[in-house]
Amino acid sequence: MEIKIVKDILDANEQLAQRNRKLFDSNNLFAVNLMSSPGAGKTSLILQTLKGLKGKIKIGVIEGDVSSSLDAEVIAKEGVPVVQINTGGGCHLDANMLSTALDNVPLKDIQLLLIENVGNLICPAEFTLGEHRKVLISSIPEGDDKPFKYPLMFHKADAVLINKIDLLPYLNFDTQAFSRTIEGMNQKVEIFPISCATGQGIEEWVSWLLTQMGHPI
Amino acid sequence: MEIKIVKDILDANEQLAQRNRKLFDSNNLFAVNLMSSPGAGKTSLILQTLKGLKGKIKIGVIEGDVSSSLDAEVIAKEGVPVVQINTGGGCHLDANMLSTALDNVPLKDIQLLLIENVGNLICPAEFTLGEHRKVLISSIPEGDDKPFKYPLMFHKADAVLINKIDLLPYLNFDTQAFSRTIEGMNQKVEIFPISCATGQGIEEWVSWLLTQMGHPI
Repeated sequence: MEIKIVKDILDANEQLAQRNRKLFDSNNLFAVNLMSSPGAGKTSLILQTLKGLKGKIKIGVIEGDVSSSLDAEVIAKEGVPVVQINTGGGCHLDANMLSTALDNVPLKDIQLLLIENVGNLICPAEFTLGEHRKVLISSIPEGDDKPFKYPLMFHKADAVLINKIDLLPYLNFDTQAFSRTIEGMNQKVEIFPISCATGQGIEEWVSWLLTQMGHPI
Repeated sequence: MEIKIVKDILDANEQLAQRNRKLFDSNNLFAVNLMSSPGAGKTSLILQTLKGLKGKIKIGVIEGDVSSSLDAEVIAKEGVPVVQINTGGGCHLDANMLSTALDNVPLKDIQLLLIENVGNLICPAEFTLGEHRKVLISSIPEGDDKPFKYPLMFHKADAVLINKIDLLPYLNFDTQAFSRTIEGMNQKVEIFPISCATGQGIEEWVSWLLTQMGHPI
């Protein structure tokens, strides 16, 4: 009975996600769903991506949070269109929330939409939004055992960014073993070690993103 | 309609939680619900707590995970009774899952039950398990804005442990501002800066825990 309800919810979500996807495609807009644990660096990555693509690609941002608009305020200072979604206690964005937020995004004026999901490694993996790519940020301090513990998220990601590599000297994290584990679970994944604090690896990430959009540098 | 369903689920959970609580009390057992983001240090804290209370208090552990039994295997090496709950995709423990797991815990042989919840700052705050205390581990690398973003969790915690303080020299984290924010949201909260890597602050945490159990040192 419980499983039936969950399936109905996911089916309804899938239909709305396909509608969002059509809206993106009809506007030649590439959408990326950014997911991570709380504090792994989603907003910092958006800031670095805005910097890396300045003058090249027009970007809009959707900020998903349980409550507060702290991140949206930070992003708005960069002069890009940003829309806040507060889930009001909900632990993930869904296609319906996104659909409503899209009414306030200037779809015709942007080429790339960065969607910051709620900080959570579990439910966001189950709710597709209509995005073209799912990007997971996993940070060094969280530990290299995370793929075993949150397998669906690592399985579904098109790219995994290993953030905070500037902290590697101070932590026990085996980057090679971590990458091998993810590659074992996910044949299509691209992995980028980065530091949003120092900018290391951002060029490779931005270059990959442009290629995915059909705009290779 | 959706709100009604959520309320029914939480009401049913509350009744089962009260049953768990009675079971704890009839066995003179103190139960602690440990919650945090993925990788903030729940298992490391359990290991430090086992060490700090060795020879003083008999402890049992319940390990909650989406999948895998990595943490339970680590804990079992310490020679304490440990029971694994896999939520099978679920993003939090609930009172019913705990009730089932309790059938396998030697309740009469232990005085303290440490329950490691699923790594998630959102839903575990809504599902009470029958525990005597809710303990939140928030780690320095997650950033000092977390109370604003996950307010319910910080509001409900009886204690907040600020873990990974050994990384303070390498990160921009304002411990005083962080503590003031939490105290503003939660009048009863106790805050302990700790490092499970170096052992710093563990004595104060263990001492508080013993006092809560009615066993002051």
